[in-house]
Amino acid sequence: MVATEQPLRQSFPEKSSVVDVQGNTVEPLKVEKSSAVESPLSSGNGSHNPEAFRQALNKVLYGRSFYIPSFDIHRGVSGLFDYGPPGFNVKSNILKLWREHFVREEKMLEIECTCVTPEVVLKASGHVDKFTDVMVKDVTTGAPYRADHLVKDYCNEKLEKDVTISAEKAAELKDLLVVLENFSIEDLGMKIKEYGITAPDTKNPLSDPYPFNLMFKTSIGPSGQHTGYMRPETAQGIFCNFNELYRYNGKKLPFAAVQVGQAFRNEISPRQGPLRVREFTLAEIEHFVHPENKSHPKFSRVAKLEFLMFPREEQVSGQSAKKLCLGEAVAKGTVNNETLGYFIGRVYLFLTRLGIDKDRLRFRQHLANEMAHYAVDCWDAEIETSYGWIECVGIADRAAYDLLAHSEKTGVALVAEEKYAQPKELEKLVITPVTKELGPAFKGNQKNVVEALEAMNEEEAMKMKATLESKGEVEYYVCTLEKNVTIKKNMVSISKEKKKVYQGSFTPSVIEPSFGIGRIVYCLCEHCFSTMPSKAGDEQLNVFRFPPLVAPKMCMVFPLVKNQQFEETTRVISEELTSCRIDHDIDIKGISIGKRYVKSDELGVPFAITVDSETSVTIRERDSKDQVRVSLKEAASVLTSMAEEKMTWQDVWASFPHHSSHSSPAADE
Amino acid sequence: MVATEQPLRQSFPEKSSVVDVQGNTVEPLKVEKSSAVESPLSSGNGSHNPEAFRQALNKVLYGRSFYIPSFDIHRGVSGLFDYGPPGFNVKSNILKLWREHFVREEKMLEIECTCVTPEVVLKASGHVDKFTDVMVKDVTTGAPYRADHLVKDYCNEKLEKDVTISAEKAAELKDLLVVLENFSIEDLGMKIKEYGITAPDTKNPLSDPYPFNLMFKTSIGPSGQHTGYMRPETAQGIFCNFNELYRYNGKKLPFAAVQVGQAFRNEISPRQGPLRVREFTLAEIEHFVHPENKSHPKFSRVAKLEFLMFPREEQVSGQSAKKLCLGEAVAKGTVNNETLGYFIGRVYLFLTRLGIDKDRLRFRQHLANEMAHYAVDCWDAEIETSYGWIECVGIADRAAYDLLAHSEKTGVALVAEEKYAQPKELEKLVITPVTKELGPAFKGNQKNVVEALEAMNEEEAMKMKATLESKGEVEYYVCTLEKNVTIKKNMVSISKEKKKVYQGSFTPSVIEPSFGIGRIVYCLCEHCFSTMPSKAGDEQLNVFRFPPLVAPKMCMVFPLVKNQQFEETTRVISEELTSCRIDHDIDIKGISIGKRYVKSDELGVPFAITVDSETSVTIRERDSKDQVRVSLKEAASVLTSMAEEKMTWQDVWASFPHHSSHSSPAADE
Repeated sequence: MVATEQPLRQSFPEKSSVVDVQGNTVEPLKVEKSSAVESPLSSGNGSHNPEAFRQALNKVLYGRSFYIPSFDIHRGVSGLFDYGPPGFNVKSNILKLWREHFVREEKMLEIECTCVTPEVVLKASGHVDKFTDVMVKDVTTGAPYRADHLVKDYCNEKLEKDVTISAEKAAELKDLLVVLENFSIEDLGMKIKEYGITAPDTKNPLSDPYPFNLMFKTSIGPSGQHTGYMRPETAQGIFCNFNELYRYNGKKLPFAAVQVGQAFRNEISPRQGPLRVREFTLAEIEHFVHPENKSHPKFSRVAKLEFLMFPREEQVSGQSAKKLCLGEAVAKGTVNNETLGYFIGRVYLFLTRLGIDKDRLRFRQHLANEMAHYAVDCWDAEIETSYGWIECVGIADRAAYDLLAHSEKTGVALVAEEKYAQPKELEKLVITPVTKELGPAFKGNQKNVVEALEAMNEEEAMKMKATLESKGEVEYYVCTLEKNVTIKKNMVSISKEKKKVYQGSFTPSVIEPSFGIGRIVYCLCEHCFSTMPSKAGDEQLNVFRFPPLVAPKMCMVFPLVKNQQFEETTRVISEELTSCRIDHDIDIKGISIGKRYVKSDELGVPFAITVDSETSVTIRERDSKDQVRVSLKEAASVLTSMAEEKMTWQDVWASFPHHSSHSSPAADE
Repeated sequence: MVATEQPLRQSFPEKSSVVDVQGNTVEPLKVEKSSAVESPLSSGNGSHNPEAFRQALNKVLYGRSFYIPSFDIHRGVSGLFDYGPPGFNVKSNILKLWREHFVREEKMLEIECTCVTPEVVLKASGHVDKFTDVMVKDVTTGAPYRADHLVKDYCNEKLEKDVTISAEKAAELKDLLVVLENFSIEDLGMKIKEYGITAPDTKNPLSDPYPFNLMFKTSIGPSGQHTGYMRPETAQGIFCNFNELYRYNGKKLPFAAVQVGQAFRNEISPRQGPLRVREFTLAEIEHFVHPENKSHPKFSRVAKLEFLMFPREEQVSGQSAKKLCLGEAVAKGTVNNETLGYFIGRVYLFLTRLGIDKDRLRFRQHLANEMAHYAVDCWDAEIETSYGWIECVGIADRAAYDLLAHSEKTGVALVAEEKYAQPKELEKLVITPVTKELGPAFKGNQKNVVEALEAMNEEEAMKMKATLESKGEVEYYVCTLEKNVTIKKNMVSISKEKKKVYQGSFTPSVIEPSFGIGRIVYCLCEHCFSTMPSKAGDEQLNVFRFPPLVAPKMCMVFPLVKNQQFEETTRVISEELTSCRIDHDIDIKGISIGKRYVKSDELGVPFAITVDSETSVTIRERDSKDQVRVSLKEAASVLTSMAEEKMTWQDVWASFPHHSSHSSPAADE
């Protein structure tokens, strides 16, 4: 957990998923330390220098238009990024796999709610009151800062640059970085005063810290009386539609509803590029389940998986994440229940299928103080990057909290029905006003008195019963009459009766896997990227080793040289690929085939078809740089087989003659 | 065009696509009249009563959760709709086909920009100043109304209900409805006064009309100094990224960039359900092309298409839409150019492939006064529904307007480069200050004078040259010195020289097909819906005849009766379908198979697999109600062949034994 997020979560336990998934970028030191043991960043990309690695990566991410800072020609604002063509394609392929892996596999109900959300909805969810970060302002210029950022920066700078500080002071600052996440507004204010922290740009004094709501506010309709917000998460739309969805699902539980869409968060000062942004894509699953039966029929399919888990106890006792067997973790109660465990396993399978390195992926359990009070258990899928461990998926058992919150504000029951296997014997309060006594006593007011008596809750009623039995009468305040009346013993009968009940209703529990899609895109780019010097040593060659299913394009088509026959053949192949639904591009530029391979590798395109005759072509694989020769007619079907995962490159390599002009791109130039 | 939109478009010629695609719902009378001749609404659905038809349709659309009014349990606000599961699936399938038909086919570059947009961008595009509707308020209650709605309602009510009005008056009101679209704010104000129109709810007097900006306004960042808006269309993000995209495309033209995403419009008073909403999905194509070469290499592929077109001349002369051959329409100049014509043809193919009835689809050309002054030509794809003709796609040649607008505000050139086939001879202004004369004359100020002279534009320079030649000297104001200086003839040489130029840059033209996806979804529902009494006559049977590719699910799987063997077989088939990527649902409810067919037809699911043995199943087709028997092993592959369009139902019907228990659903019950 990022230190600076914790105050938010504590003051706002009602809803942590957005914070979980989009709010956190850098691990506190205690976690960063241990991470180095498990899987140093350097292992994946040949570099021991995260900054240098990121610089090389960014050169390609921005240079090849994976990302474009939004509205750049207008100088834009920070924290908004566009996806350029290859970035969009990677994101879109990730979402396609997400839908296949989760929605289709489990027959989830996908819906689409609006981003514009009336205030009353977010009042009910708690966001209007508590979805805040703590802010301070430069008292002179008014420039805003996140209070926790300033304290954190102060500590880090002291620790890194001040050689004069004592060992005690250093220990104090290190401890502070660990506990900063639990700091209240008051705590933050005290630390800022104690350390004399000033505005970084001007050195002016800072205001007292205060909460800043992170939602984008707007006004709906022309009269200005309907306040609205851009949704901070997609989940609330699903909760509000629970009754519709439950009915649509034939009134059967469990079922899951999902939504993919934009969410918005008006960051105080966005940092770290595409990881902390003001608008992002969430994919949220709300799995509704009986609170007393959280078993999962397909759990056995994931029970044998083993991967890095980081349970609460290991974190608290200073250990590091360990490879655990999921089935055992659920059996031992480390993971609270099978359904939560099933989703953890499915998330693991999803992320590794995308190309996330399993050695730089861990599932970290929330600490007790991180978790909302109502939550049963919560695990974050965290991915290691040059920025540290990044939380990309939050998987939480949120119990009945969300449905109850909306139910309370709206008066609409959001419940499921059940028939009991055994009828239940329930005690029921029965209040019977005796009208023949009440009538003469209260005349025209009788109706008000009767209604007031019938509306008593159990506590009030039993108290009245006791008083009537001991004293024979009781003074009783009737709201609608705005006065006390005297109720005598013969005017009302109050009792508890036992009844056999054969069915009832209950509020389902919600298990919520919530995916920060933009973060997954970025982390995947880090895990797939590598760079090496060309043979001649005069340039860096970059490659994204995206699996074919997520790569920006399945293949490129290159005529070896510019001539009419090859271009015509290229056109024919391209049309065949299109009719097979294979995304591809053509590059007819007058540069050497080697240079075109280099450019194609840099985009992460797994295959290249080179047209070097009118009857056959070569297919080159990005990572091995191996090439096979296939006939013109077979080219599209070979690519299709690989796109549909019916053949691997190994199968293709084994089935077709190898093409020998395989040489390094640099040598080709 | 809806009457009430025209004032907006006239006052805001800079940008009409959002208005085109999302802003218009009902045709003015002149168009509605002629439409009846072409294809009455009744033809498609067996009803001569649009209101009754719509009522039956809405019962299913809302009853089966295609649409859900957003945040309904909180009473929401008008003009916001969620897509429930079947509605979402239809929409999602439409977008999938859209991407296949346009993006993959033409190798368009898809990008994703943010919805949150800084004010400066929408200042440049003109939206901040001119994206408005005309509003009036109840002077007592402050309740807001759209001025044009009130005038229109007044006219319609008079015409429909007031039997006392004279023939002259009736003619006047009818004429008014036709020309209302050209009314200015002042015109609307005069008519409201003239007719004594009051607030509909209170009969109070109304304020003078004034413009209301339709964008949702918000504030970006914590300091409140960055105003932002939720984008009213997706196009501006593409225009701002032109240079990135042009570079990504290897600096080649033509190319197209596309974006699919949410757009927002703070309607004054939304009407007509999902057709006029405050948040909607747009899919916009911006095709950049050389302004002097708008031919299209693939035009011949659509040139032979014939469909309903409604050119300007036919509208003005009171004729109706006519079936025209697209190739001839372009050849005759009715459609301005091949690229515009190509997209019109592609849009026709797309919409009819979805299931839009070709007899209730027309392409209407914008009238001269409807079109922005810079636009070359513009055609709307309009679909006939129970609300009249609905504009769903706008296809416009917008020339260089948008790129120039952003270029002007940012100072960033948004241009493409070209090498001239023949070098061009251009005259170039050459200003050469003579420093050896200027130095002694101006000493320390020499640099300021030189810079000022060099910065002269052609007009200034030629004027100075003339004065120097006639008078020998000239008084010249130097800004940076804030004073006049005397320039003598020997101090500067001014001339024009001819130069051969081999390459240059130009601002590309933009041809923009812009799709209101939500409108297409709704119109498709209308065209696919039909209703008929059950055999017993005791209920209405509803069916959506969606083509398989857009249906909410490809098939349902029903165990004939509830028993363990059939349920196990159902599970096996379901897993096979999932692995073949076939979206389906299982219905194990204990109701008759006939009733389950009825429910499945009502959702528009084209096929149902009924498990009535452990070795074979039946497959039923929705529209014919025919059934074939296939072996358990073949079931998934038969569905897959139909999903991939490798087999039609006719092929299946010809290949497998027919199942004879085919009976009407009502009889099955």
